[in-house]
Amino acid sequence: MPEKKIGNQTLQFNSKPKLLSWSSIVGPMEGKGPLGKHFDLVLKDNLLEGDTSWEKTEQKMMQHSMEIALEKIKLQAGDLDFYLAGDLLNQIMNANFTARFLGISFLGLYGACSTLTEGLSLAGMLIDGGFAKQVGVSASSHYDTAERQLRYPTEMGVQRPMTAQWTVTGAGSYIVGKADSGIQLTHATIGKVKDMGVSNANDMGTAMAPAALDTIKAHLQDLGRSMSDYDIIITGDLGVLGTTVLKELFHKEGYPTDNISDCGLLIYGPDQDSHSGGSGCGCSSVVLNYLLGQMLNKKARRILLVGTGALLSPVTSWQGESIPCIAHGVVLEYYG
Amino acid sequence: MPEKKIGNQTLQFNSKPKLLSWSSIVGPMEGKGPLGKHFDLVLKDNLLEGDTSWEKTEQKMMQHSMEIALEKIKLQAGDLDFYLAGDLLNQIMNANFTARFLGISFLGLYGACSTLTEGLSLAGMLIDGGFAKQVGVSASSHYDTAERQLRYPTEMGVQRPMTAQWTVTGAGSYIVGKADSGIQLTHATIGKVKDMGVSNANDMGTAMAPAALDTIKAHLQDLGRSMSDYDIIITGDLGVLGTTVLKELFHKEGYPTDNISDCGLLIYGPDQDSHSGGSGCGCSSVVLNYLLGQMLNKKARRILLVGTGALLSPVTSWQGESIPCIAHGVVLEYYG
Repeated sequence: MPEKKIGNQTLQFNSKPKLLSWSSIVGPMEGKGPLGKHFDLVLKDNLLEGDTSWEKTEQKMMQHSMEIALEKIKLQAGDLDFYLAGDLLNQIMNANFTARFLGISFLGLYGACSTLTEGLSLAGMLIDGGFAKQVGVSASSHYDTAERQLRYPTEMGVQRPMTAQWTVTGAGSYIVGKADSGIQLTHATIGKVKDMGVSNANDMGTAMAPAALDTIKAHLQDLGRSMSDYDIIITGDLGVLGTTVLKELFHKEGYPTDNISDCGLLIYGPDQDSHSGGSGCGCSSVVLNYLLGQMLNKKARRILLVGTGALLSPVTSWQGESIPCIAHGVVLEYYG
Repeated sequence: MPEKKIGNQTLQFNSKPKLLSWSSIVGPMEGKGPLGKHFDLVLKDNLLEGDTSWEKTEQKMMQHSMEIALEKIKLQAGDLDFYLAGDLLNQIMNANFTARFLGISFLGLYGACSTLTEGLSLAGMLIDGGFAKQVGVSASSHYDTAERQLRYPTEMGVQRPMTAQWTVTGAGSYIVGKADSGIQLTHATIGKVKDMGVSNANDMGTAMAPAALDTIKAHLQDLGRSMSDYDIIITGDLGVLGTTVLKELFHKEGYPTDNISDCGLLIYGPDQDSHSGGSGCGCSSVVLNYLLGQMLNKKARRILLVGTGALLSPVTSWQGESIPCIAHGVVLEYYG
């Protein structure tokens, strides 16, 4: 029997589960960005007509992204064995209410912006382990719900420092299962919490960079691979500053960084005043939709997506603690 | 190859992972309760000497419970392939900081009071699926941290209605792995979100009872078993009122309920003024320590522990939403 755990942190899915379907819904700012045309649905406003709160809109975005992903391959929610989901809000409220709507077995996850890759990793294990045939995974974030929970209500108009990232209003859903062809989920590397003492909630890219470094290095070491074995190594949302820090950390250790990119860098254009780029669970969740399209168009054959999560708690921050961070990586391959 | 998924919601762990070690730490009130002598450590105060916040104490409780569980079988954190943990606090802060301390691959979970059984279910999958040899699982709650986050700061002295449950100050840790003998983890039934419209944060037992009903019925149906196939079917923390509701729901459908019990009923004595019994992730996490002791003493051979989670969000409650609930079940067997 081939090995399933390789090295210290990496899992190998020998049966090569496939991404059967995916979808993305974004807010107006993300729709105007350089990837806008690659998303399934762009909302006209951060608040859906008739909704009385941004939280209700975010929940509908997550729910509808899963409905679209199911519809694309003519499945019903009941055809999924499990639903794995999470978001940035306390008690992962969007995921809970979406699971209530779907009515299927549900496992709630919290990994901040690493939630999507945590979910895809577990989906790979469930399918490769023989416990499921089809698994749904979702993650979402919303600028206005996240800001008022984690920083300041947006109505206050607090000036954001240039190190701050813009929380992406977006939801992405994925259906993982078995198929003869398609984009394969071949490996997952489960991260360790790294904390280099950063406590500034407006500079999460710098806080997360060491976690991304640690997981990417562990991944390459576990599999005996090098950076150049990937067409793209893309982090979740380190943003402008965090990506610079990550590249510097790699340079110091003698690694090339030519093929390193970041979802938070791709989603907004330079004219969109996002400051240090995008962030939030929704960032990598919708940008992966674009990346999968690139793979189907043969612009990339093997990518490593490393979801980066700043496990920021306002309570522990007020109590003087720094921000623990984590990063989980998944490998996606397509040779169709 | 024997089936791994049985029926709609139940997983069968054919390699029968074992509980290798476990431990429990509780606060003073839990220590004075009827199960007090069964816990590894009873704190003298809800705030550890030198700590400046209850949150810091809760985090240390979770961390120390894992240290004790490791110490009992002479393992180090690095001997675990994964750490799965969660708690009641926003951003599962206790789990994140404990994972930072342990320094191993970490998957963060949110399932409110179903977190322990969610973790044990995933641990079973990881080990039975061949992805891990040893997995650590923790969950915790703390009266003062939970009350001030989810209801009112305890200093306010708000009068609690008789339907309210008392959040257990406690942390439990478990190490799951392979061994020739010991208590076996044979099945897990993953719950669906159920919501019967209860929106009272001071009556979570009633809110959670339908989720427990649904998961227990699904479990018995999936495996073709009856209530009497278990020595005890024990819910996480429905408390006095919730357990009464659950039994009534079962009676209406013609099920016997003689062997149904609840962790929230066992942890406090009638003289402890807890009102409707115990609750919180820590409740089932420490009571399971007691139950495993009973199994080793041959007072029970097969139990079904059904962790019940009220996925209560203060934000959605203020916005008029009801409380979505979930329950996950795990089967434990010992014939030693």
